[in-house]
Amino acid sequence: MHFFFKGGLPLLVAAMAFAPALSAQEAEAQVTPSGVVANAPATDWHRIDPADLMVMDLSPDARGKRRRVVIQLIPAPFSQGWVDNIRKLIASHWYDGIAVVRVQDNYVVQWGDPDGETDHPKPLPEGLEQVPQSQYVAASAPPFGPPLFAPDPQHNPLRPLEPLLLPDAYAPGTYFAQGWPLATDAKGVSWPVHCYGYVGVGRNYSPDTGTGAELYTVIGQAPRQLDRNIAVVGRIIAGMEYLSSLPRGTGEMGFYETPQERTKIASVRFGSQVPDLPAYEAMATDSDSFANYAYLRANRHDTFYNVPAGGVDVCNVPVPVRQVGLAVKRAGM
Amino acid sequence: MHFFFKGGLPLLVAAMAFAPALSAQEAEAQVTPSGVVANAPATDWHRIDPADLMVMDLSPDARGKRRRVVIQLIPAPFSQGWVDNIRKLIASHWYDGIAVVRVQDNYVVQWGDPDGETDHPKPLPEGLEQVPQSQYVAASAPPFGPPLFAPDPQHNPLRPLEPLLLPDAYAPGTYFAQGWPLATDAKGVSWPVHCYGYVGVGRNYSPDTGTGAELYTVIGQAPRQLDRNIAVVGRIIAGMEYLSSLPRGTGEMGFYETPQERTKIASVRFGSQVPDLPAYEAMATDSDSFANYAYLRANRHDTFYNVPAGGVDVCNVPVPVRQVGLAVKRAGM
Repeated sequence: MHFFFKGGLPLLVAAMAFAPALSAQEAEAQVTPSGVVANAPATDWHRIDPADLMVMDLSPDARGKRRRVVIQLIPAPFSQGWVDNIRKLIASHWYDGIAVVRVQDNYVVQWGDPDGETDHPKPLPEGLEQVPQSQYVAASAPPFGPPLFAPDPQHNPLRPLEPLLLPDAYAPGTYFAQGWPLATDAKGVSWPVHCYGYVGVGRNYSPDTGTGAELYTVIGQAPRQLDRNIAVVGRIIAGMEYLSSLPRGTGEMGFYETPQERTKIASVRFGSQVPDLPAYEAMATDSDSFANYAYLRANRHDTFYNVPAGGVDVCNVPVPVRQVGLAVKRAGM
Repeated sequence: MHFFFKGGLPLLVAAMAFAPALSAQEAEAQVTPSGVVANAPATDWHRIDPADLMVMDLSPDARGKRRRVVIQLIPAPFSQGWVDNIRKLIASHWYDGIAVVRVQDNYVVQWGDPDGETDHPKPLPEGLEQVPQSQYVAASAPPFGPPLFAPDPQHNPLRPLEPLLLPDAYAPGTYFAQGWPLATDAKGVSWPVHCYGYVGVGRNYSPDTGTGAELYTVIGQAPRQLDRNIAVVGRIIAGMEYLSSLPRGTGEMGFYETPQERTKIASVRFGSQVPDLPAYEAMATDSDSFANYAYLRANRHDTFYNVPAGGVDVCNVPVPVRQVGLAVKRAGM
């Protein structure tokens, strides 16, 4: 069979253990995005605090296999009113027993109280905050990271771009700070963006902004039109495939038409409450490794590629996450 | 439950049949992208020739339900060497009995000969062309369509952009022509882009460009770095959900590790050979309806939205396709 992309990094890394001298192919692998990830020094990774992880176990699959989804909550200054609500909902075990109610292809998987619109909704815990729309953005943009890269007028080679913004179809610029992809209007206002696997807060018509009891994740092309209109509260760092491969709903907007089609959420706990959870690390977005990784995402020049794109969009530079001491999670070749 | 987007067009259209006077909500629905699609006049749609459709029936699902995927082949001047090969492969029934061999989350579903890399590959039909890399692009860009829209420096309101290019992170510009999303270097060279649901030709290292016997489709964020490096030969216009919801492979790059995990392709025929296939129409990308639809994809101002994005990327403007006389396929709200 033909591989339409041959990175093959893990195999090459394994081979290197037996053959210290690099073959041409091995040397090339180091200049791929996955090669940069595999070779990043320990100092270019940050441990993710398990207290900031939301471990969502779906009901086991048809064969009884566990389906564990791990969500990293977004740090300040973004969306903290909803994050506080979500922490209360986790602490009270409110999410236990709710369900995936909607799967719309190339859009979102959404989960919440299946009885939320009936006359017997699941009672919410005390003390949830009504979060203002102003929290969709942060008035003070976090500091820009290291130089990223944009096409020059000839589109080849690339040059570092000041002030460190990736070109974007939706906003004056996008960048990475504190480990997260952000958009900015370059006037000091920034906001988190809706990329594949990112998690947001379902709501009704504004001024309602949602509580955090109903959440969704993106399973297709980044619906960036939702930025600044819905709260982004986290991202899935493991188990995304258990949500993205669910059957699509056949009802309006991908809602399931019968209760039987829903996938039940067995429990949601903080990472710090789950004894068998591995440690996770995210690549520091202000590290040299990340700058190299982003550069190579924009500018593939390994053997498979004939023409480097010369640019990349912020959602096509997924922040690498790995399990410590275990296999590196490939960040989308 | 909370709907994080309430377009609800089909329900509203149904309601209108009983209440000719529009409510405010009904009137608003007409200024959504789906409202424009629902109200587009017949002259703004083109019938897709069934001879240009590739009807791929997967083996039935666990409940015996048919899983039919319909692929529209790309027209000249793009990728025609591979399209000619694919026509020969369909005509000879070569695809019958091959399988989905790879599902990599947020990347691709790939299908081909499971024995392709063994010493007993399935023999290819006579007369397949070895297609040159030059066919990745078209030297003469098709004419630009109607005005599309880009953010002005204040980012609001939008203004038509000349020369009709959408801003893009990968190429100097993107646009639509002959019903397809294209990128261009604005020097007269253009190429089709890798969007969600678009179909490409698997290959090995260049100068190999693939025959068309191994194909893939995109199931995540548009991997635009593949543009001009692999041939885009079509797009899925129905049944995408049968591919996008397949279990992800656990092997290297998402390949399935055991034959049992593969999904068999029962048959592939031309649309003109399938008696029970509905008629399909695509919205003409040079129509007023499409310009309005693209504008509204960039600039949501219905009640749900507080802040219009002010821009949109080419892969977030999926070309609307409908079954004639049947329900309108929603083109991603």
